[in-house]
Amino acid sequence: MITVDRPVRFEEVDAAGIVFFARFFHYCHEVMETFFDEGLPRGPSGLRGYADLITRRRIGFPAVHVDVDYTAPLRYGDVARIALTVAKVGTSSTTLRYAFTRMPDGAAAAVVQHVVVSSSLDAMKKMPLPDDVRALLVAHTA
Amino acid sequence: MITVDRPVRFEEVDAAGIVFFARFFHYCHEVMETFFDEGLPRGPSGLRGYADLITRRRIGFPAVHVDVDYTAPLRYGDVARIALTVAKVGTSSTTLRYAFTRMPDGAAAAVVQHVVVSSSLDAMKKMPLPDDVRALLVAHTA
Amino acid sequence: MITVDRPVRFEEVDAAGIVFFARFFHYCHEVMETFFDEGLPRGPSGLRGYADLITRRRIGFPAVHVDVDYTAPLRYGDVARIALTVAKVGTSSTTLRYAFTRMPDGAAAAVVQHVVVSSSLDAMKKMPLPDDVRALLVAHTA
Amino acid sequence: MITVDRPVRFEEVDAAGIVFFARFFHYCHEVMETFFDEGLPRGPSGLRGYADLITRRRIGFPAVHVDVDYTAPLRYGDVARIALTVAKVGTSSTTLRYAFTRMPDGAAAAVVQHVVVSSSLDAMKKMPLPDDVRALLVAHTA
Repeated sequence: MITVDRPVRFEEVDAAGIVFFARFFHYCHEVMETFFDEGLPRGPSGLRGYADLITRRRIGFPAVHVDVDYTAPLRYGDVARIALTVAKVGTSSTTLRYAFTRMPDGAAAAVVQHVVVSSSLDAMKKMPLPDDVRALLVAHTA
Repeated sequence: MITVDRPVRFEEVDAAGIVFFARFFHYCHEVMETFFDEGLPRGPSGLRGYADLITRRRIGFPAVHVDVDYTAPLRYGDVARIALTVAKVGTSSTTLRYAFTRMPDGAAAAVVQHVVVSSSLDAMKKMPLPDDVRALLVAHTA
Repeated sequence: MITVDRPVRFEEVDAAGIVFFARFFHYCHEVMETFFDEGLPRGPSGLRGYADLITRRRIGFPAVHVDVDYTAPLRYGDVARIALTVAKVGTSSTTLRYAFTRMPDGAAAAVVQHVVVSSSLDAMKKMPLPDDVRALLVAHTA
Repeated sequence: MITVDRPVRFEEVDAAGIVFFARFFHYCHEVMETFFDEGLPRGPSGLRGYADLITRRRIGFPAVHVDVDYTAPLRYGDVARIALTVAKVGTSSTTLRYAFTRMPDGAAAAVVQHVVVSSSLDAMKKMPLPDDVRALLVAHTA
């Protein structure tokens, strides 16, 4: 599990005054990038782990399924505390789970499930999870 | 059912070269705004239907659940043809369904289910669907 | 000159309740895409003009300079009426000008100047404006 | 002067493969938020400095002018090193300057000037800079 504190930014609320529902997925992806960056070595040219996967190794993780339950709104000034766990590791797919807690009051804000498939970006075809990515995922399985 | 053709914009792809998965929800919300704008009368000051709900009537529709299955990527130059239907109408909640077709090739790109709850924005509490909104939703039930 | 009416979307306001200042540039780019799409023929595979430039011809127009004066805020429910004119056409650069009017009240909202340079995207080097692009720009010079 | 290292995120590039020109302003605002958060005390309810200004004190800083010169593109995997200085402090307005350096190669990427006006958000009218904000700005004048 990794936990990231993500302050809500000024432009991330909507006309109803709460964080726009689609923004939660932007936050999730930021946390996933951080997870890969911390868990994989930098690339030969110094790129962080996830950017090295995408840019040099040409391996990506497009979403095939997402679901989310929203339980409390986030407002400007709040911090989203996001805990990422790995719920399942398959041959080429993996299920990530993000629990959002609203800080400072500690309300449960949302739970997101995010299923991604390891894919060759040039062919845009699925491929088995690379060994280093699999090892990282397995190490964080809840 | 309403159908909206939404061209992918230049800045909506990600570093993998496909429309970022969170963007699909931005598109859904645009279609929902269009649905309300076309189906509800303008407000007294000329505001379109959805903006009048939010701004003057102070009634919003925050998401409580979203799920999506992605089946084909969208790229810059593609058009997302998005068909909105109303899957279910409850007392205060409703389930909207958006089927994404990639144009011009006609590939099924995604199906999104979006459950929203009619809410007083000032109290941020759920409330029964207003009569005009309910009538509009029922008229578009699949 | 082309004029585009762009409704402010639900998620484009910020925590101060007005359209976030950076959004104006997103709007400008949308108008520029429309300008190229309407003025250039579709590509061989059916791509709209600007997408064909970027995707097939690999010619882009990165900004080298932007300036903007903001004179009235936009809110949710407003429509930005955006008039694009071509202020100047050089060898490889061109200056686009976007005048924003807030509708329905007609207040002058912003004026943006946007200098872009015709560039080979593969080399990321400037190149002379292609003939068809130059002709389009010259035809719309104010 | 404060300096913030801001990694380019996965979804911030455009179809030309570089950070979308409007994104630079999103980055600037993040740095401005950080500047106020670090320089102003938290509000009574624990809100960070800028959120407390906006949410409780109802004072905002809408932009009245922005200009930028772009000199090198940013790509996914790069880090924008952004140095904020205060170029000028007036009665109600101030000019912020952001110098973007691309890391790790150190190329000068952009210089942004950002003129904001202290405003009452409820009246949306300009007002003199509050004393604590003025003191912070003066302390960082280049």
